[in-house]
This record gives sequence, structure tokens and C-alpha cells, in this order.
Amino acid sequence: MEGYSVVGKRLPRVDGLAKAIGQAKYAGDMLLPRMLYGKILRSCYPHARILDIDTSKAERLPGVKAVVIGKDFGGFRYGYAPDARDKSPLAVDKVRFVGDEVAAVAAVDEDTAEEALQLIKIDYEELPAVFDADEAMKEGAPQLHDICQRNIAVRRSFHFGDIETGFRESDHIREDRFETQLVIHGFIEPHAVLAAYELPGKITISASTQTPYMLSRLLSIAFNVPQNRVRIIQPYVGAGFGGKAEAYPLQLIAVLLSQKTGRPVRITDTQEEVLLFSQRRAHHIVEIKTGVKRDGSLVAREYRIITNTGAYVDGTPIILQVAGVLTTIPYRLPNVKYEAYGVCTNTPWLGPHRGLGFAEVHFAADIQLDMIASDLKIDPVEIRLRNAVQAGDITANKLELASCELTRCIEKVAEASNWAEKREKKEIRGSKRRGIGIGCGSFVSGTRSFAHTGAMATIKINEDGTVNLSTGTTDIGQGSDTVLSQIAAEELGLRLEDIAITRIDTDATPLDSGTYSSRVTLEAGNAVKLAAADAKRQLAAIAAENLGVSAEELEFRNREISVRGNPDKAVPFARAAKMAAYSQRDVLGKGHYPYNIELWSFHTGTGNASMAYSFGAMVAEVEVDVETGKVKLTDASVAHDGGIAINPMAVEGQIEGQVIQGLGETLYEELIMENGRTINASFADYKMPRSLDMPEMNVILIEKADPYGPFGAKEVGEGTISAVYPAIVNAIHSAVGVWIEELPVTPEKILKALKEKRGGES
Amino acid sequence: MEGYSVVGKRLPRVDGLAKAIGQAKYAGDMLLPRMLYGKILRSCYPHARILDIDTSKAERLPGVKAVVIGKDFGGFRYGYAPDARDKSPLAVDKVRFVGDEVAAVAAVDEDTAEEALQLIKIDYEELPAVFDADEAMKEGAPQLHDICQRNIAVRRSFHFGDIETGFRESDHIREDRFETQLVIHGFIEPHAVLAAYELPGKITISASTQTPYMLSRLLSIAFNVPQNRVRIIQPYVGAGFGGKAEAYPLQLIAVLLSQKTGRPVRITDTQEEVLLFSQRRAHHIVEIKTGVKRDGSLVAREYRIITNTGAYVDGTPIILQVAGVLTTIPYRLPNVKYEAYGVCTNTPWLGPHRGLGFAEVHFAADIQLDMIASDLKIDPVEIRLRNAVQAGDITANKLELASCELTRCIEKVAEASNWAEKREKKEIRGSKRRGIGIGCGSFVSGTRSFAHTGAMATIKINEDGTVNLSTGTTDIGQGSDTVLSQIAAEELGLRLEDIAITRIDTDATPLDSGTYSSRVTLEAGNAVKLAAADAKRQLAAIAAENLGVSAEELEFRNREISVRGNPDKAVPFARAAKMAAYSQRDVLGKGHYPYNIELWSFHTGTGNASMAYSFGAMVAEVEVDVETGKVKLTDASVAHDGGIAINPMAVEGQIEGQVIQGLGETLYEELIMENGRTINASFADYKMPRSLDMPEMNVILIEKADPYGPFGAKEVGEGTISAVYPAIVNAIHSAVGVWIEELPVTPEKILKALKEKRGGES
Repeated sequence: MEGYSVVGKRLPRVDGLAKAIGQAKYAGDMLLPRMLYGKILRSCYPHARILDIDTSKAERLPGVKAVVIGKDFGGFRYGYAPDARDKSPLAVDKVRFVGDEVAAVAAVDEDTAEEALQLIKIDYEELPAVFDADEAMKEGAPQLHDICQRNIAVRRSFHFGDIETGFRESDHIREDRFETQLVIHGFIEPHAVLAAYELPGKITISASTQTPYMLSRLLSIAFNVPQNRVRIIQPYVGAGFGGKAEAYPLQLIAVLLSQKTGRPVRITDTQEEVLLFSQRRAHHIVEIKTGVKRDGSLVAREYRIITNTGAYVDGTPIILQVAGVLTTIPYRLPNVKYEAYGVCTNTPWLGPHRGLGFAEVHFAADIQLDMIASDLKIDPVEIRLRNAVQAGDITANKLELASCELTRCIEKVAEASNWAEKREKKEIRGSKRRGIGIGCGSFVSGTRSFAHTGAMATIKINEDGTVNLSTGTTDIGQGSDTVLSQIAAEELGLRLEDIAITRIDTDATPLDSGTYSSRVTLEAGNAVKLAAADAKRQLAAIAAENLGVSAEELEFRNREISVRGNPDKAVPFARAAKMAAYSQRDVLGKGHYPYNIELWSFHTGTGNASMAYSFGAMVAEVEVDVETGKVKLTDASVAHDGGIAINPMAVEGQIEGQVIQGLGETLYEELIMENGRTINASFADYKMPRSLDMPEMNVILIEKADPYGPFGAKEVGEGTISAVYPAIVNAIHSAVGVWIEELPVTPEKILKALKEKRGGES
Repeated sequence: MEGYSVVGKRLPRVDGLAKAIGQAKYAGDMLLPRMLYGKILRSCYPHARILDIDTSKAERLPGVKAVVIGKDFGGFRYGYAPDARDKSPLAVDKVRFVGDEVAAVAAVDEDTAEEALQLIKIDYEELPAVFDADEAMKEGAPQLHDICQRNIAVRRSFHFGDIETGFRESDHIREDRFETQLVIHGFIEPHAVLAAYELPGKITISASTQTPYMLSRLLSIAFNVPQNRVRIIQPYVGAGFGGKAEAYPLQLIAVLLSQKTGRPVRITDTQEEVLLFSQRRAHHIVEIKTGVKRDGSLVAREYRIITNTGAYVDGTPIILQVAGVLTTIPYRLPNVKYEAYGVCTNTPWLGPHRGLGFAEVHFAADIQLDMIASDLKIDPVEIRLRNAVQAGDITANKLELASCELTRCIEKVAEASNWAEKREKKEIRGSKRRGIGIGCGSFVSGTRSFAHTGAMATIKINEDGTVNLSTGTTDIGQGSDTVLSQIAAEELGLRLEDIAITRIDTDATPLDSGTYSSRVTLEAGNAVKLAAADAKRQLAAIAAENLGVSAEELEFRNREISVRGNPDKAVPFARAAKMAAYSQRDVLGKGHYPYNIELWSFHTGTGNASMAYSFGAMVAEVEVDVETGKVKLTDASVAHDGGIAINPMAVEGQIEGQVIQGLGETLYEELIMENGRTINASFADYKMPRSLDMPEMNVILIEKADPYGPFGAKEVGEGTISAVYPAIVNAIHSAVGVWIEELPVTPEKILKALKEKRGGES
């Protein structure tokens, strides 16, 4: 951006080299003296009562140092949301899915630990199981938890505006049913943890997690250790996408094993374990009934959502909350009725996933909008422009959109993709039909959560003028270390390489609630900016003395502190730093960004959920082979209003990543289950997109400063993905005239739909 | 102390359990993935030119990953003092003592590294060597460094008052010559380091050091890496006593080996290497001429000191500076002439040692004071009371004694030991003669040093009301973690267990110049107190809102924040902490204690060297066997004015430790050298005191608040030792009538002196 030296520049990542040459170390690489290796025994039944566990043989195996089972946790249960503490790190009474953790071993090496698992004898009483949410809600279905009637663990019900009047005033109403599938995050680094419990009660842990401070709080509760005796040392994290936003059983189990053995314990999941057992994006059934005016303006919508939470409730309340709250963006929607059910079944539990809640539900609404456009003979771009929210809008449920460039995003992708022309003139080559479709996306830039929210940062200026920046923020691969360093450098008038960012050590680094809900750039970014400003104030006082001017007259640029308008009157930043050190005025700046908006109401779903909302649009161009049913995404034009891009290269990377991830989820990815067992638990059988699947991409950043973002920046990591599914599905319809309402859009589904369509036509 | 809840209490150490059960980990325990083991090849000659080094055979040994020699440091040289950068981490041109580092190897295990050392071929040209400082100063003596004339590397010359007039006005003048010996610190943990050099230039190091921030600065210079890319992670440290106050070659060598191999490298000295080659307290020759009035009042003194620095200059300038500056305490001395020479010889280099500089010189002055008392027939207690400095004194060289209870210390030990009676009536049992003697001690509470000085601390208050305290201060076993935690707890109205102190990680913990010169309690203690006060202010604002009062009315006591004078109107500390977290006002307090006194003049030795000075006295009772010459210290009465004792148990421990260490140095300890080789390099042959050598100890704390100390505290770790030597030597004279002027006072010296005395008498 104009006027900035570091912000807005396409700078390479600060952690790029370390990762490229293998220097970066992850939790599974960590070592401690006298370390043991842990392994977890999991249920082989989807639903069974545990009658007895005999660990004696395992305990006698030479090299085994401890075996733990559920009761060793003393009744402790946890869950992501306050009303959903239903998970014991090791099952106590029952196992509820194939993979439920039952026992764990710590031994001198992994082979011994593995061998010991085979020696643990468990008597199970198998119970009838249920895998489908619809089935699970029926009277007489197997019950997973005593406290849930008909396995309905979560219910959310919101009303914004007046739904009755809304439908009454609608000119056209339609109802549709959509379904999403089970997908996995696909991060490269499996869950891993190294834990050390020391007497009289101190826990030190290195874990692959997006939320070290939340983990710290949980361990404090689980092991009854004060918060100041729980220390999370954060190694590099090999991506998360929401899949590491929560505490994982293995983290708690490793601590327990360490407590029992008095030695550090490391547990690393295999990639197969991750695919088989760990949290996934849930199966959603989304039924929506929408009423519009003749011109396509949305008037009312009713949602009925059923989410298969899997065996434990976990993040479901939050997922369904977010989905409901964000129904009023990115399209103006004055009247909403939202009913959502989270239903337990004997399958692995769901977890947060990129675009959490919003993605799963918005995909349906945005496809249905195309259906409506088709019904009313309105161009899909046109109907979106007609309904797009605008800067200054306050939605029916009180979201306050301080900045919004959605209209420009839609216009830009239409223009870039040559929409009007291509929509008119559809190309046919042999069995291949080309089509073009559009979808829009949106997301929060952080949101105030139920636990603590907020971000802090400190800036330490060294004698040589270099800077140590400490935040509590985890870079999970999305590039926040680079972006936060850029913010610090810009504010201090330094270069990116002058800033070294400290990896988290909760003993010393300041508080931050974690990497989730696309909160980092806005919240931690503001904290860093405030810390840098504080440091600057301290240094300016020293420079002002030296230059014989007042501190207010000074500016920080190009590693110099100079008098505004008189650049020759200056002192180098490094010299001022040295003066500070040797005049006993060492600089330590502190920044705290309070996410000071109201906590949303769980009851009404009303209230401003975020300081800033992002918006975007994507035009997808596809080629559908009507003989094979195969779909190829050939081109993607994406425009995103993420405010000012601190690092355009990083923003583009985020957007490209979402296009690819969304593409995979739309066309290929699905965890296939049979009787509660995942049968395609390898990256050979679970197909994620590869380089050959990449479309031509045209990413357009729509940069307008958000008033609350640091240097005007807002969300960039989750807003786009929600646009990808509908854009592709709508493009397929544009190519071959069929609507596919269930993800993924496999060749079989295309062929079946084409056959039905031909049948209908014939 | 009255009114305090945590300060002044005899609380067990916060690190006591971890150390007692072996949980505490030291640098030599540290592990990193792919770590290599380093070993150092040392010179076997005291003085030789290096003609050639052939490392090819060593490099070819399987398992060897790198071999480095002096030139790999690219000409880098360092030294503790700014004018003494004469040491290359690996010798380049010459070796100057037996043990001088010449080459180093990194290999996959220690055995391979050791084997590789044998394969390094070095061609030496042996040079004539000199071991004795007197010899080395002679014309024609072998020269160690080109820039030193007659090997005189350091010279300090001070004049306070008017020495000529002083002697002219004296009624009695005497001249004596004293000598100290080479002694070693005797710490349990040998030097150890684990270093990792990462690209593009980041150093991470865990080292057994007293001064991590100084090491960080040095590594930044040595490897041309910015300060924010040098990270010191501090493990537990197994004592230092000054012996780990400086960078050690092995630390620099480990980094170089890591840089060359791309893998972490750990080097651990053996205890034998420490005894053979590492820094020791220097051999000093102290000639003093003192003039007094008839009543024993000191009028003038002239010092001539020769210090054998060993092969490199290192801390000698500071040692001789401190010795000169502190000549004016603990006895009033209006006129001083001080000449000191640091002389290089082909022996291992000297280093800082408990009581640095002052101890070595004061021992002579305090023995000579007894000689004068004896000459003038004045009681030793009487002459000390007559000369003792007093609170409010400004010495001849401008030391400002804001607090001083020396007189009370002298009176108390005289009373406690029943001085008057025992001095009169000397006991004789068979060949054993009992005697009683007194000495006084003193020290600074930190001093402003040549590099950065100052201390910072931060206080983070967690949601549950527990506290993380971060300082840059190293607990080397002296108990500072406990004392600083007590200061934080007291200021915040909490209990000791509510505070967790963070071990140093220079990336995140705030700056502190290190653990030396007894600066920690005063400097870091003040920083911690300020940080706690800052945190308190932040929390008080929240509590005040809650209670509907102004923050000024609140006090923090017993884990509560209450209205002063109305204890029922209160909010628990933990609740206020939770309110802070959930109202987005997380508390992070910051404290910075600038050691804002003038930097002493190297030229004049004049200026206030410290914010606060400690004082103390010891009465030693000995039993001397006139047949064997053996001396036993039977009783020690020590009084120490260290201001308010934050933790009296810890203070007593410091004092007891100094009595033992001083006892060892006075009676037993000496590194014996033959032709530049230390011949008693084991704790079997180098006798340190053991439990059977312990005297009955009576430790008396004279507590009066110092105006500058945190809660009135000042130095406690070094002031006593200087009193121990003269007290014992004076007691021996009282028992058997001989003065021993050379340490240690071995049975041989006693017998020789007794024989000479009998000869003289006969």
C-alpha cells in the first residue's frame, strides 16, 4: 500500500527457509532426557460396554513403564463447548465409536509400547450401534449418552425478523435439501505431543495445537495444577485447518502417563490413525425453504439442519451457532427461522474445520440461490448483486458490517472471467461440456468466544536495534508469524528481517486465545501494533532528547528516527536502541487488544459476532464429460475483500489453498464408512487434489481498509472456501443442466443425474 | 519482618524439590534431535608456537562430522573486560598454557569424538615458559603476548586523599607482605553447553552460565548474528561462584561446530578438565604499608599488588579495579595509594571468584590490622570498632554508605562468642591450643558494569489468579528464584506458591545483565517489585470498579484485594484476575530497575560503586595442634548486615556457605602446579571442606532496611567470605602466637612458623 514500507509487500515467509530445509522441528521431533513412548489402544467396536480391562500382562512386559485406563482420569470429562463435556480422554463405561481411546501404554520404545497394547485384555459387551443421524433421532434407536433424548445433543433455534410475514410477502418460494459428506482436514503433520509432568505439579508440553493457551487451561483443570504451572512450548505446527483447535485425548493421555511414570512421554499419531479416528467435518443435512420477490430479492428463509456430531458433542454447539448467526451474510436476508440439531451416532466425532459452520450451510443457500435465479430467469451474477450486503449494513441479527466490498468482488470476478459472454455461449468439445458458475463467501475476523478472548504482544528492543516480538499466537502454517512481523516492522520503521518472532512458551509469552475463527491478523495484529507503538513511544523519548525536539515531532522510517519534514535531522534506530540500553532505559513495549464486543447470545443468535467481516466471490469454470461424468475445474476467478493485504503473497496463498481445498471437498473427498468403520483411511484411497487438478487461478484482492483491522486488514483464511462449493456446483449445472445437491459431486452422481434428466426429458 | 506475610519468612526453596529428586535438568542433560557430541583438544605444552595442524585423519574417522581449529573463528578474540580481548576460543598462533584449546571435534558419540582428537596432528615449536608473576615481570622473561611489556597486561593506580601527609601524621607504620594461592570454585556441575546454529543465522544455546544475556551479546558479535537471533535457554545451573560469569571457549566452540555440521552439538567438560584447565582465583602478592594513630585509627595505606593473571587477561582489570575501589571499606581509611599489576604467565587464566578482588586484598589488610593491634596492645575488637565505617559515611573515594550496621555486627559477634573472656583465658588441652580471632567483611550489592546493567521483570496474572514471573535473572543455586518469587508474592498479597518463576529464554524473558557482583536481590528484586506494583495497579482498577471504591483505597493481602481499614469489603485476588481476563483486561505488569549511578572511573577509582554495601564480622575459634600443625575451626560466629533478609533461611545458607568456602581456602585448598601443570586435579587431592570440617556456627542477621533495597534488602552472597580468612588467621595467632601470611595455612607452615618462633625465643 502506498505510504507503507513493509505492509502490503510480497515478502517471503519468515519461517520459509527453516521449513524448506528441514530445520523446523515439530512436536514429534521433540526429545527430552529419559523420554518414553506412548501408544493408545482404541475400541474395535462402534458401541460396546466395557466390562473389564486386564492390564496385568501388559504391565509385566519388560520395557513397559505404565498402563493407564479411563478411571485413572478420576472422572474428568471435557468438551470444546461449555455445555458439552462428554468426552473422557480414555473411555470409562462405554466405547462409542471404532477408535474410541480405551487404554494407553508408556514404554521405552515404540515397538514395546505397541506390543504391550496387544497384551491388554478388554471384555466388551457389544451394543447395537447407529451411524446415521436421521436413524439416531428415531424412537428406539440405540442411545449413546444417557442425558440425550433420541441422541439429540444440541439444538439451536433462532428467529430473526418475522418469518411468517416474510413468506407471506414472497412472490416465489422453493424448498431444497442438501447434504455434505465427511471430510478430513488433510494436514501433513499428525497429532503429536511430548509431555512432562513434574512434581509437585508442573506440566510442560509440546504439542501440535492451534490453541496452546486453551490447552493450558484444560490441563490445569484436568490435572488440578494451577495455570502458572502448565507450560506449553510450541514447536512448529504442520497445519491445522481447525483440526488442531481443540485438546486431543492423546495430549491428556501423555500427561497422565508422564505423571504415572515420572518421565516425559511422547505420543505421535500415525497418518492412518488421523484418517481413521480423528475429528472430521461432519455430515450435514441442510433443508432450506426460501422466499424471494419477483426480482430475486431474498425475503425469508427457513433452515432445518441436522448435523451428525459423531460419538461426542464437542464443537457442535459452536458450529451450529456460527452457522445460524451467519445466515444473514453475505446476502441481505431480513427474515430467518433457523432450527439445527446436533445428533450423536457411533462414528468418530466431528471437529472444527475451515469455514466452520458457515461453509456447510452456506453452500446449500448459495446453490439454492442459483436455482431461484434459474426459476426466475435472472442471471446468477445479477441476483447476487441484487442481494449483496453493503458496508454500513446492520443485519437482521445485528451483525455490523463496518466494511464490505462484496459488490465489487462480484463485479470483478464477472469481469475477469468474461462471465456474460461465457454464460451465453457454452462451449462443447466432444463429450465435454463447459460451464460457468458463481458463488460468494464470507467469514468473521475472529469472534468473541465463550472462554477468554483477546490477544497480547510484547516488543523487546535489543542493544543493536533488533527486535524480539513475542505473541501468544500460533502460526500453523498460515503465515501469521510473517504477517505479525511485518506489522511490527512497519510500525517501528524497520525491515522485516529486523524482527524475530518468538515461538510460544506460555511461561513467558503473553496470552492469546489461539488460532481459530480467522482471528489472528485482526486481533493479534492489533496487539502487535499496539506493542510496537508502545515501544516506539519509549524510544522516541530518548531520540527526542538526543535531537533536542519533542517526541511528537518524530517519525520512524527506514531504520531511522527523524524529525517529520526534516529527514536530515535523524538518529538511526539502532543508535537510539543503544542509547536506551546504556542509559538504563531498555525498551519493552506491551500491547493488548481486547476483543471488546458483546458475547453473542446463545439463545437468540443476535449481536455483532465480529469486529470485521470478509467477503468474496468466485467464478468457477468447469468441463464436464457427459460420458464419464468426470468434472474438471479449469478456471477459478476469485475476488476477496479481506481489507488491506499485509502480505499480498500470503493472502493469495490462503485464497488459492481454499480453492484447492474447496475443490477437493466438492468433487473428490469423502471418508467412506461401513458399520462405523472408515474404509478409505489412506491418501491413496481418500483422494485430495493434486497439482494436476489445479485450475488456472486468477486471484484478485479487493483492498479497502477496514476501520478495525491493523493497517486495515481483516480475514483471509476462511472466507473463500464457502464460495467454492456453490461456484463449482452451479458451474456444473450451467454445463450440463443438472443440480447435484449432495457432496461430493462424483462422476456417478453426475451420470445418474444426467440419466434422470434425460429420462425426464424423454 | 513485621507487617510482611512472605518477605522475612523462612520458606523452602522453590526449586528445592526438583533438585532433591533429580528432576532438575542441567545443560549436560539437554537433548536435541540429531545432536552431536563435541570434544576439545588442548595444548600439552605451557608455551609453544603452532606450526601446523593436520586434521585430515580425524576428519576421515567414521562418525566424525566436523573438526575445527583456531582460524575457523576468523580472527575473533574476546575477553571479559573491554581492554582485554586477547583470547581466541581456539588458539591460533600460539598456545600459552597447558590446556589451551587448540582444536575440536563433533561426532555422533563421545567415544568417536575422543578417538578423533587423538588423530589430530599438531606440530608445535616449544617456547620457554614462565609461571611466576615476579619472574614474568623481569626483563628477558618469555613474553606471552606481543602487546604487553614485561608481561604486564593490566595496571591500576589510584590515589585517594593524601598519602604523604597520611604517613607523616601516623604514629605507627608497618609493612607486610601476603600471598594467596590458586583455588578453584568447586561447583558440582562442570561447564556444559548445547548449541544449535540454524540458517540463515540463528543461534540457540543452553549453557551453564551465570550471565545468559552477556553470552548472547558475545555470540552475536562472534558469529555476526543479530541479537534477536541469539537465544539462550537457561537450564538449571549447578553453582558458579563466579566461575560461570563469563563466556567459556566451549560455548563458542559448540556453536562453531554446529554451524559447520548443521546439527546441534553438546559439549560437557569433565570435572577433571574443570580442575585442570578452567578459571581459578589468581595467585596474588599483596604488599601493604599502613600508618595508624596511637589509638589504632587508620590514617594511610599503600598497596602494591601483583596478580598472576595466567595466560589471558580476562577479568583482571575488573578484579584489580574492585580491589582498589573497595580499599576504603569496611574500615575508615582517609589516605590511600593503590598500585596493582596484572601479569601474564603460562598458567591457566584467572576468573571471577566469590568476593572478587576485595577478598584477595582485604584478607591481607585485616590480618595486618591485628598485627597493628598487637603492636599497639589494642584489643582486635576494639581496633575494629574504632575504625568501622558508619551509615552516612562518604569514603575517600566517594562510596556512599546509605546503610551500615558494621559496628553492631562487630559487637554482636564479640558478645555471641564470649570474646572478652576467651581472649583472656586461652585453653590448652594436651598439644592443642585454642585461639580466637576476628575479621570483618563487606561487599557491593551490584555495581554498574562496563556493558549494559539493569534488570527487568514482567508479571503475568492468569485467569485463576496464579502468577508467572519472568525475569532475566539466573538462579545459580544461590536461591534467587525463591527470593524474587517472595518479593512478587509480598507485593501482590499472595503466597509463595502462587508465583511460578520462568527460567530464562532470552527470546521472551526480559533483560538482565546476569548473576555476578551480588547484584540480583537488589537489582532484579527491585525490578520484580516494580513489575508486581504495575500488575497490582492494573488489577486494582478492576477491583475498585467491582467494589465501588477508588483504587487508591485498596490493599492486597492474603490473596484478597480489600478496602484499607475495611477488610470485609474485599474481592478475592483470583476473582479479580478472572474479571480481568473476561473483561478483556488481562494483566501484564512490567518493571525495570535502572542501575542509575555513575559508571566508576577506571582512571581514578572514585565514584559510588554501588547502591548499597553490606557489612559483617566473624569471630573464629580454632584449635591448633602444636605437634602436628593441624588447625581445626571449631566455632564461627558471624553477623551480617545484609539489610532486611527476604528469606532468612536462604541468607543463613549463603553465610554458612561462605564460612565453609573461606575455611577451605584458608586452611586446605590449593591447586598445586609443576611446570605449568596442575598436579592435584581431583577432589581426592584438592581438599575441600567436608561435613566433618564444619565448625559450630552461629549466624546472626543484623537487619536494618537499606533505603535502596527491595523491602530493604541488600547483598548476602559475598560479603562474609572476606572476613573468614583473617578471622581464622588471627585466631591461629591468638592460639599459638604466629602469623601466617601465605594461604593456605597448612600444617607445614604452622610447624615451620612455630619452629622459627621457638628459634627466635631460644
